[in-house]
Amino acid sequence: MAAESPIRIGVLGCAEIARKVSRAIHLAPNATVSAVASRSAEKAKAFAAANGYPPTAKIHGSYESLLNDPDVDALYVPLPTSLHVEWAVRAAEKGKHLLLEKPVAMNVAEFDKIIAACESNGIQIMDGTMWVHNPRTQKMKEYLSDPELFGQLKTVHSCFSFAGDEDFLKNDIRVKPGLDGLGALGDAGWYTIRATLLANNYELPKSVTALPGPILNEAGVILSCSAFLHWEDGRTATISCSFLANLTMDITAVGTKGTLHVHDFIIPFQETEASFSTSTKAWFNEGVTGWVNKPSEHKIMTELPQEACMVREFARLVGEIKNRGAKPDGFWPSISRKTQLVIDAVKESIGKNFEPIDLSGR
Amino acid sequence: MAAESPIRIGVLGCAEIARKVSRAIHLAPNATVSAVASRSAEKAKAFAAANGYPPTAKIHGSYESLLNDPDVDALYVPLPTSLHVEWAVRAAEKGKHLLLEKPVAMNVAEFDKIIAACESNGIQIMDGTMWVHNPRTQKMKEYLSDPELFGQLKTVHSCFSFAGDEDFLKNDIRVKPGLDGLGALGDAGWYTIRATLLANNYELPKSVTALPGPILNEAGVILSCSAFLHWEDGRTATISCSFLANLTMDITAVGTKGTLHVHDFIIPFQETEASFSTSTKAWFNEGVTGWVNKPSEHKIMTELPQEACMVREFARLVGEIKNRGAKPDGFWPSISRKTQLVIDAVKESIGKNFEPIDLSGR
Repeated sequence: MAAESPIRIGVLGCAEIARKVSRAIHLAPNATVSAVASRSAEKAKAFAAANGYPPTAKIHGSYESLLNDPDVDALYVPLPTSLHVEWAVRAAEKGKHLLLEKPVAMNVAEFDKIIAACESNGIQIMDGTMWVHNPRTQKMKEYLSDPELFGQLKTVHSCFSFAGDEDFLKNDIRVKPGLDGLGALGDAGWYTIRATLLANNYELPKSVTALPGPILNEAGVILSCSAFLHWEDGRTATISCSFLANLTMDITAVGTKGTLHVHDFIIPFQETEASFSTSTKAWFNEGVTGWVNKPSEHKIMTELPQEACMVREFARLVGEIKNRGAKPDGFWPSISRKTQLVIDAVKESIGKNFEPIDLSGR
Repeated sequence: MAAESPIRIGVLGCAEIARKVSRAIHLAPNATVSAVASRSAEKAKAFAAANGYPPTAKIHGSYESLLNDPDVDALYVPLPTSLHVEWAVRAAEKGKHLLLEKPVAMNVAEFDKIIAACESNGIQIMDGTMWVHNPRTQKMKEYLSDPELFGQLKTVHSCFSFAGDEDFLKNDIRVKPGLDGLGALGDAGWYTIRATLLANNYELPKSVTALPGPILNEAGVILSCSAFLHWEDGRTATISCSFLANLTMDITAVGTKGTLHVHDFIIPFQETEASFSTSTKAWFNEGVTGWVNKPSEHKIMTELPQEACMVREFARLVGEIKNRGAKPDGFWPSISRKTQLVIDAVKESIGKNFEPIDLSGR
């Protein structure tokens, strides 16, 4: 049986993050970059050259032109969030599978339009959250699901902050209301919410409450905020995201029997390996002067960078559809939607003077 | 000049924690155990024997008898919280300096009575929070105060939980309304609040809001709760305390330039050394596939156990008063009071359906 040909991915827009994902497409064994589009052909050409695109990669001077390219199976879409609904829907209607950057939309109503277009057209959609594809994440999930090692989850705390410099805080698309208008919540907060949902086996909280003191820029974009999540059975979580504090990316998950700590969950300290720490049934020694069952470190080698793992998984699903008539996998859009729902609720709670927002039935 | 004689400490009550502090008094170079009291002389005698008390140590069959012992300079008071106000005030009136277990009182009104009695009688009071006396804490404080390495504090998250077993949850004084009636908030929460205040240079927050979902036992004692603290300039903190989750003791403090992590802040993993991790101006590498300025570990050797450091500092202050006519040091009662104020506010917020409690002017 001949090897299947790689999934042909077109890159819709030459954002900074597209450099990293272009490399990931090169690295993924089952995908290839077949085209790139920008609003100008020159920009697309320069981007292709700077990012080692194969000579066969087609250069498109408009997004529309890429959508009509018959030699493209799927698109990677790193456009500003405010443009997602338009271009993702149009792409789905053209039969292109979608690897869509996060946050997936400005709100869940927009994302539901994208999902509807994908469903009508048999399109696979996955968001661009890379860290969940790191093999470490699978190992963390196994620990968190282990009734003996971790027990029942009680609380999660997740934080992602980085200190944007003056230029970032003035000019980055993530601080512009018309572009990535969800600011730190949509960017950094997205990851902390995803981490929280992952630890809760993707069960939505009953309520989400923004915590007082979010910091907004003059245009009303969130630069820093935090929120509290609460599940009916008593599980709790806090998330915290900011463009205004030193780079920090933590998950702390505490269960009845175990504790997990990770301090680089989104981008591991090193590309080739990643670790996390766990303890189980930690307690004090006899004189209460030290611990027994201290935390231990688990190191996982990363053969393929996490973003290449993401592309590989996306291309695998697209291949199943293209080559074997499979249906799109509903898991990925379902967790994108839940993440977006929580983002919407944090924003709504801020707008309602920090009232709890009930997520039942959403 | 002859060496000054050690400060003579009497132990008022034979609680479990008094074993550890008795050892600490033995280890502190400037203190000695001179007496112990229980409600029965037999119990006090057995306690003295089991804990290696010197033959000179006097055995008292009542608390009152110890208060009248002229050969005692100071008392260590590990009584249940509900008894603090009565016995601390009586001890102060008898001229005994006070090392008082935490939480210092059932509420700040009670503690103010203790403070008033101490002030009228020239009494030094310090609470029994051991970890702040660990040399590591001083090093952490230096890092957090460094404008270049840490910058301005933005947020702190502190958590202390441990999984009480069935016996603990049924019988421990910390789950009994008439004894240590503040439950997990007064016990575990005390430390997280102190850590938060320490990181904020002991500045009280403007407001304290309990977070939904505290867990109470049938008698109404808190077994688990969390709260959000907010300062006028935008600093925030979350604290989380529980008797129902695996042993976890974290401080995460994030500033504009630095991040501190510690995972054993109350009782270090090992008695002889303790560490914490910091990063400064952490950022991503060129391809955003790893970090530069990664966190680094700082290890501090602990020559004297932290509780012995506590006794040494307490005895030093008592010695200054006794031998050189110094005035009591107001720092220690001031931070006890602030910690208690925040505890009271968390409780008040729970009682008021999680309304923010304004601490201005308290």
